[in-house]
Amino acid sequence: MKKEYSTDQPLILVTNDDGIMAPGMKALVEAMMPLGHVVIVAPDKGQSGMGHAITIHSPLRLQKVEYAHDVEAYQCSGTPVDCVKLAVDIVLHRKPDLCVSGINHGSNASINVIYSGTMSAAVEAAIEGIPSIGFSLCDYRYEAHFEHGKKYITQLAKNMLDQGMPVGTLLNVNIPSLPADKIKGIKICRQANAKWVEEFDKRKDPRGQQYYWLTGRFVNKDKGEDTDEWALANGFVSVVPVQYDLTAHHAITYINENWTL
Amino acid sequence: MKKEYSTDQPLILVTNDDGIMAPGMKALVEAMMPLGHVVIVAPDKGQSGMGHAITIHSPLRLQKVEYAHDVEAYQCSGTPVDCVKLAVDIVLHRKPDLCVSGINHGSNASINVIYSGTMSAAVEAAIEGIPSIGFSLCDYRYEAHFEHGKKYITQLAKNMLDQGMPVGTLLNVNIPSLPADKIKGIKICRQANAKWVEEFDKRKDPRGQQYYWLTGRFVNKDKGEDTDEWALANGFVSVVPVQYDLTAHHAITYINENWTL
Repeated sequence: MKKEYSTDQPLILVTNDDGIMAPGMKALVEAMMPLGHVVIVAPDKGQSGMGHAITIHSPLRLQKVEYAHDVEAYQCSGTPVDCVKLAVDIVLHRKPDLCVSGINHGSNASINVIYSGTMSAAVEAAIEGIPSIGFSLCDYRYEAHFEHGKKYITQLAKNMLDQGMPVGTLLNVNIPSLPADKIKGIKICRQANAKWVEEFDKRKDPRGQQYYWLTGRFVNKDKGEDTDEWALANGFVSVVPVQYDLTAHHAITYINENWTL
Repeated sequence: MKKEYSTDQPLILVTNDDGIMAPGMKALVEAMMPLGHVVIVAPDKGQSGMGHAITIHSPLRLQKVEYAHDVEAYQCSGTPVDCVKLAVDIVLHRKPDLCVSGINHGSNASINVIYSGTMSAAVEAAIEGIPSIGFSLCDYRYEAHFEHGKKYITQLAKNMLDQGMPVGTLLNVNIPSLPADKIKGIKICRQANAKWVEEFDKRKDPRGQQYYWLTGRFVNKDKGEDTDEWALANGFVSVVPVQYDLTAHHAITYINENWTL
């Protein structure tokens, strides 16, 4: 029998990529509780760096679990994107009014948006037509202070519920790792043109076979003061509107003018 | 000791998401051989639907293997994006002049660009500053006819080597599943605004526990005649220039004018 969710208050789906037990998720749930009816569908384990992966070669498990504050919660064996798909089709049976993903343990600013499971879950919700925001705190530690950005999280979620966004867009929100009274406010930004420079760590296993750990150095050569990296470095919460139409329209003109086809 | 690759001819990195033994990869290698020195770094197994996933919780293995035509080839235990990173940092020690990914078994047109490991490998190469193209054939079968689009693949790769693309862009190329003489030519397009509607297949395992298979229906409500889906449905090779700057610039204006921050 399908459960019917009241339409008297907003239905808010919460997910993440650090797994259902991550402190960042609990902080996000608490920030959402004053705004509507919260339902969690999140990975049963860490899924960082999963990008927009979906599970097509193995089946998915979905299990109802107990969660703090008696919030309705389900853990899923798949990726963050799988969680959003299962939430809409199997758990909620209708589009939620808002999907929030996070709070991620670590920055998803700049090019990290591409690798991030947190942001990919938010993107998937936007593809489904759900107003959607991914939140990240620029602090990788398990014991990071997620409460510091809470005021901004609630404010942004409320705006999303009330004012919405243009079709096909969502938000990538990053919070600097600062005490609440040191955060200067919100900046609406563009994605900085920065990247990771790979530096694989080569090792030998106990049987003498080579293996590699992916590591890297984040390099930002974008000096613009309208970027998310600038905002974060200067004490602001960065808010980047993101789209999943990847078409590079200016390149269509370039090809038509320069290529021989 | 590092191997030095000659700069007398283009150095071409070939990867994919269907795994190093996929027939689509062999067809792509053969299409590239007349254009330069080909090196393969590809997943050791199928990695479809992996999106832009990277491997950060486990180490990576990289192994030199024998390949047809004596092409230098390495298989990697990771995702397509891992393959590109390992190729640049560990195998080639320099930027190749071109990266091609595919030929994917199945369409990566429209929203599929987001889920596709093939396209994510190509995107990763572009992030690294490498001219890059992802190729897909709209035929999922193992025994699909990859030779039919070969003429267009070589033509597009040659243009990419000679004319290049604007910084931060790459190509998503899809080939219709038609005999060579039925393909009408190339169309430069935008990404169609289409999506998958999930329809999870619910089953019980032998122990009576519920599980789910992700399935779905592709729905295209975009009637534009400038889209990749239109081009493919009308017998053209679709070429969409793609960017990894996801900023929705028009939404910056919308938020500044409508939100209370």
